[in-house]
Amino acid sequence: MSDKSNLISQQLPQIHRTSIVAQSRLFKIEEMHLEFSNGATRVYERLAGSGRGAVMIVPMKNAEEFFLVSEYGAGAHKYDLGFPKGLIDPGETPEQAANRELKEEIGFGAKTLVELKTLSIGSSFLSSKMHIFLAFDLYPETLEGDEPEPLIVHTWAWQNADELLQQSEFSEARSVSALYMAQQWLANKQNTQNKE
Amino acid sequence: MSDKSNLISQQLPQIHRTSIVAQSRLFKIEEMHLEFSNGATRVYERLAGSGRGAVMIVPMKNAEEFFLVSEYGAGAHKYDLGFPKGLIDPGETPEQAANRELKEEIGFGAKTLVELKTLSIGSSFLSSKMHIFLAFDLYPETLEGDEPEPLIVHTWAWQNADELLQQSEFSEARSVSALYMAQQWLANKQNTQNKE
Repeated sequence: MSDKSNLISQQLPQIHRTSIVAQSRLFKIEEMHLEFSNGATRVYERLAGSGRGAVMIVPMKNAEEFFLVSEYGAGAHKYDLGFPKGLIDPGETPEQAANRELKEEIGFGAKTLVELKTLSIGSSFLSSKMHIFLAFDLYPETLEGDEPEPLIVHTWAWQNADELLQQSEFSEARSVSALYMAQQWLANKQNTQNKE
Repeated sequence: MSDKSNLISQQLPQIHRTSIVAQSRLFKIEEMHLEFSNGATRVYERLAGSGRGAVMIVPMKNAEEFFLVSEYGAGAHKYDLGFPKGLIDPGETPEQAANRELKEEIGFGAKTLVELKTLSIGSSFLSSKMHIFLAFDLYPETLEGDEPEPLIVHTWAWQNADELLQQSEFSEARSVSALYMAQQWLANKQNTQNKE
């Protein structure tokens, strides 16, 4: 655990000036005039986020299997396999958002949610934060979402997790991280139970 | 491995019209008029990417340790711990880009690069593709990069990987995925060697 203090002691660049340089219905691009602690100056751009955060859920169908959804991604104009996810609505806790997304995307609520970690993506220009949950004790309940089409729900066995990682359609870094973290959480739990 | 064919058989929405609705020095926002196979229509927005792709590298310092860097991220205006990464330059292969980024960010080249997977992020509005490599057999060589300040390089032991995952500064989903994938690759190699 060498020189961890170096990270924490790094001095943030000064933000001398910011302005919105482009804007659409959904996105705002902000320009930032920065001065780093060594005196170097740069003009960066970032997407100004909603600040609402998001959730992703690994839903346990039973002890041996979990659910996946396939969803259209406009970014690369293709369908991808991954875990249910969505933005946190105003006033919601991350747990409430996770339960709502499960009901909208796979038709189940969860009696038990375990938070595994908060993940970010593309921090050079995004401020995204996604809370990753493992969901147990599912019960059938459906909520109407805003998806243009019903998501196709897949069942996958934990013992075939390695094969899922080899699928090019399973490529979203947050789904890949979530799969590994859930697997590790379940293995740790199993170890603890075996020792009891 | 249930109903995998469902994924592949899903019919992509038709793109009826696209236009650039906002543009800055670095970003273009594209509006897409879509019709899904069930007849539902939506107007989506996405960031038009460079299409160049990117690389991330898990650099093995030796059999027991790996390197990390801490880098400023303008998105959330903070420093984050993660693996060296960067865009592929025009004309470069992913392997060449990986080697260049290593030389720029940690002052080493790699004689051996193993590609672990290609990851995407935020596919609802991004078309990002990042090739994840594990790098062995490092040799000292430095290239001048375009970073505003030298990156602080950290050494971490594989046996403390779980502690790294618990750090909130280690949050980028592609770095988290890369750590798990590298760990799994190394464990598989160890198992194979033990059987020989």
